[in-house]
Amino acid sequence: MEIENIDVNSYPGSEKVYIDGKLHPIRVAMRRVNLTPTVKIIDGERLTRENGSVYVYDTSGVYTDPNVTVDINAGLPRLREEWIAGREDLEQLSCITSDYGRMREADSSLDSIRFSHRYAPRRAAEGREITQMALARQGVITPEMEYVAIRENNNAEALGIKSHITPEFVRQEVAAGRAVIPANINHPEAEPMIIGRNFLVKLNTNIGNSALSSGIEEEVSKAVWSCYWGGDTLMDLSTGDNIHETREWIIRNCPVPVGTVPVYQALEKVNGKVEDLTWEIYRDTLIEQAEQGVDYFTIHAGALRAHADMVQERLTGIVSRGGSIMTRWAVIHDQENFLYTHFDEICEILARYDVAVSLGDGLRPGSIHDANDRSQFLELDVLGQLTEIAWKHNVQVLIEGPGHVPMHKIRENMDRQIDKCHEAPFYTLGPLTTDIAPGYDHITSAIGAAQIAWMGTAMICYVTPKEHLALPNLEDVRNGVITYKIAAHAADLAKGHPGAQVRDDAMSKARFEFRWKDQFNLSLDPARARQYYVESHKDDDHFCTMCGPNFCAMRITQQLVDDCAK
Amino acid sequence: MEIENIDVNSYPGSEKVYIDGKLHPIRVAMRRVNLTPTVKIIDGERLTRENGSVYVYDTSGVYTDPNVTVDINAGLPRLREEWIAGREDLEQLSCITSDYGRMREADSSLDSIRFSHRYAPRRAAEGREITQMALARQGVITPEMEYVAIRENNNAEALGIKSHITPEFVRQEVAAGRAVIPANINHPEAEPMIIGRNFLVKLNTNIGNSALSSGIEEEVSKAVWSCYWGGDTLMDLSTGDNIHETREWIIRNCPVPVGTVPVYQALEKVNGKVEDLTWEIYRDTLIEQAEQGVDYFTIHAGALRAHADMVQERLTGIVSRGGSIMTRWAVIHDQENFLYTHFDEICEILARYDVAVSLGDGLRPGSIHDANDRSQFLELDVLGQLTEIAWKHNVQVLIEGPGHVPMHKIRENMDRQIDKCHEAPFYTLGPLTTDIAPGYDHITSAIGAAQIAWMGTAMICYVTPKEHLALPNLEDVRNGVITYKIAAHAADLAKGHPGAQVRDDAMSKARFEFRWKDQFNLSLDPARARQYYVESHKDDDHFCTMCGPNFCAMRITQQLVDDCAK
Repeated sequence: MEIENIDVNSYPGSEKVYIDGKLHPIRVAMRRVNLTPTVKIIDGERLTRENGSVYVYDTSGVYTDPNVTVDINAGLPRLREEWIAGREDLEQLSCITSDYGRMREADSSLDSIRFSHRYAPRRAAEGREITQMALARQGVITPEMEYVAIRENNNAEALGIKSHITPEFVRQEVAAGRAVIPANINHPEAEPMIIGRNFLVKLNTNIGNSALSSGIEEEVSKAVWSCYWGGDTLMDLSTGDNIHETREWIIRNCPVPVGTVPVYQALEKVNGKVEDLTWEIYRDTLIEQAEQGVDYFTIHAGALRAHADMVQERLTGIVSRGGSIMTRWAVIHDQENFLYTHFDEICEILARYDVAVSLGDGLRPGSIHDANDRSQFLELDVLGQLTEIAWKHNVQVLIEGPGHVPMHKIRENMDRQIDKCHEAPFYTLGPLTTDIAPGYDHITSAIGAAQIAWMGTAMICYVTPKEHLALPNLEDVRNGVITYKIAAHAADLAKGHPGAQVRDDAMSKARFEFRWKDQFNLSLDPARARQYYVESHKDDDHFCTMCGPNFCAMRITQQLVDDCAK
Repeated sequence: MEIENIDVNSYPGSEKVYIDGKLHPIRVAMRRVNLTPTVKIIDGERLTRENGSVYVYDTSGVYTDPNVTVDINAGLPRLREEWIAGREDLEQLSCITSDYGRMREADSSLDSIRFSHRYAPRRAAEGREITQMALARQGVITPEMEYVAIRENNNAEALGIKSHITPEFVRQEVAAGRAVIPANINHPEAEPMIIGRNFLVKLNTNIGNSALSSGIEEEVSKAVWSCYWGGDTLMDLSTGDNIHETREWIIRNCPVPVGTVPVYQALEKVNGKVEDLTWEIYRDTLIEQAEQGVDYFTIHAGALRAHADMVQERLTGIVSRGGSIMTRWAVIHDQENFLYTHFDEICEILARYDVAVSLGDGLRPGSIHDANDRSQFLELDVLGQLTEIAWKHNVQVLIEGPGHVPMHKIRENMDRQIDKCHEAPFYTLGPLTTDIAPGYDHITSAIGAAQIAWMGTAMICYVTPKEHLALPNLEDVRNGVITYKIAAHAADLAKGHPGAQVRDDAMSKARFEFRWKDQFNLSLDPARARQYYVESHKDDDHFCTMCGPNFCAMRITQQLVDDCAK
């Protein structure tokens, strides 16, 4: 299998660098953008002044390390293997333990599509508390915690900017439940990252085939592609054939945490018949996926039987797939949602692998009309109760949020979430601030995402231009990721994240000095910036085609500065 | 000359309709989107229920009226001609009065590029106060005021939604200076519109050739194209050859108000030499353009000599072309900016044609680093003083605003502007909320524009994906306009504009009922929404490829509603 269309070595003007840990033998990857010097001709003499490098938070993994050759068939190097192998609170299993996993393993007809390098999973030794949250509460600073502390301070560190983000601060945030490090012990390929409102805003991307389109290769390509552009986590929402095998390929090759919605696969196992879903099938699916290395599960345990009747007040009913499945199951069987009734047991399973739970907002509004309504907020109250249960098991918790929300109703979402869910990190889809722009919903939603992230949402789930219309292709993924990088970075600036503005300042200085290459190299999408430029420029213009030579304000300003100096 | 690439009759599922005035014999154009009925099959019987039409604010002029054939060479029908012809406070000139205009008229070498249907201009009769503001203050409700009142209530009217926007309310807002109706008496082709924070948020588009590219045909095409997609006003920022003739073509064919920055042309007249600019050349340019029908002038009268020294504190100096020109002129001559010293005289000229002044923010920040700095806010104070002067002359005033501003500094811009500029409408460029995404600055800026518009900015100036890199082509204009329609509409929803949510609700209902064609027809860009859909669908799917048949939340919800009803 090959990753096509991706020139993963193509961050221009950049070097992959590694910063060593001080507490642990870790090396934290970053991208360093090296800039050209400022050049001035004064009285015929050419004076140059160096411009310091800019360190960029790097989600692309070793795909962009020229010293590493990645073989998709072998999977990524297992970065965390040594950290995990030394832990005496874990046990090495001799084989996978889920019924479904074993069945697939035994099916030789799947050999041709199977990822061949298999690893036996680990889990917590009996009676041991092994999650990042459990360790944080015990006062342990894990390698993962030191890793993210260094990673979050990309420019702060290099420039001596004072940062509140220390390994000990990370530990405290994880212990308090205000931040999550999704790090399944069975996904050692992932580079640790942290989700919490006192850290950089993160963005999640969704990929996944549906019954109608998209194959394994395409999904792996999309996963790598989304990491290349800046996706911090990746949800595999596949609902078609061979979900199990697709997921294995993705996890083994994914340098960022992977999330899933287990009920999708559970439903496939009963051929799409909601009424045939059972707790036992779901439970086995959790174990199956946890042993593959999924880092967080979206679980719609808050959509209760009682909420179903309220749906009829809505313009667009239930728009969450998981929410609609579980609510319908509850109505058909006239029983409570089994994810709710079995939530303790779910947490026991998750705790053994350190899978975080992302509590799904099954009743998120699907239209401006339905925003902030009764059922949405009643479900949020339930998510708050479930958060406390999960934390009892030391399971890390994210809370999922809307959806479609007009700007004036965004604040209430954030404030209520912090209050009702005890400061567990909020993870929102957009929100979309209007319904009337299909084809541009990356933009309708980035407007909302930037605002809610500034207010405290820790992770925003990207939306592509194809939302509501079709599945995204690679170019849509790129547009979605860059759009959400913009929203996240705008929020980081507004929140005053240490060092966030360094990149903006470097860009603006390069702009003022007509250092075009530095502008491209510093931008979120260097290839596109360069492409737009070269389509209409000669190489060394000291102005751009927007204004022409006589009307370039920056050129005139530089003349002005010279005038003033005379 | 022909408008290429524009299928101006292509709003699908829509009709051009006209609403009659009650005070004046006016007909206000709107677009009515007609929807298909809701269909349900119950017990084998096909039940249908009609869905009411949605009225869309329409900026496209008669280009989208199938009963009108537009000849670009003849110009648009002169909608306001009769309203104006009847006014005894105006005088009909026998010829144009600017020196430059006469010179161009006499130059037969220009015949081949000249718009041939010429009209002699009008101006205020001696001693008469003729602007919309003057009339409003006298208690007169003009046809323009009634027109915009009807226009602003597109859906409110049809649905019986109570609206605060009456013709009398419009008059009061214009009289108070809180709103502007840009309506040069020499641009009768334009359909009246209003800019003020108690009305729908408007968006301005910029077109214009530079010395390096773009010709007359292309600029006229862009003008019509931008109106087609939803631009409310249009600035012609041409700086290349034949500006005078290009402008004539644009104005005669433009159904929305046209703005310019007269100093650009004045500078061309002195061959780009800032030091050679004079008040006399500038003054003649104002008259030349006012008699062509320009509806508002951006005038950088607030960038003072004293501000020049502060520029050196900045990372990106002055990024306003007009601001940099005037500041440099002041430094070279060691004199005050002549636009400031002659501001009374400027207002006297503008008042004779009812040209509004848009007070340029010559010192707007060009980077996150420079946002909300000393020079920016000192200039804003000056703009407030100039506002009072303009209002003494009954000249309508807009205040231009930034620029590059991180989200947490946006609020201060709005609050200060309202305070210092006495509630004159604010008109901002973005603001861009980060500097690091060239190629995507329509998005970095839409995030800021939506917020500042919600806070009270009356008009937002679009930014295209090519900002900072190159001049936009037609596709960039489309992307820029739609992106800004999103920002403006998101703000209208957040402000609770009467009837704004009608379109969102209709869209969401169509979505829930899988009425795909209605979704396309109701969207801001029907062609793109349809294109994305048809690329991956069979026609009548009751789900979309995003989730596939078993995982469509809306389909499951409909089954759920059926279950509940059993």
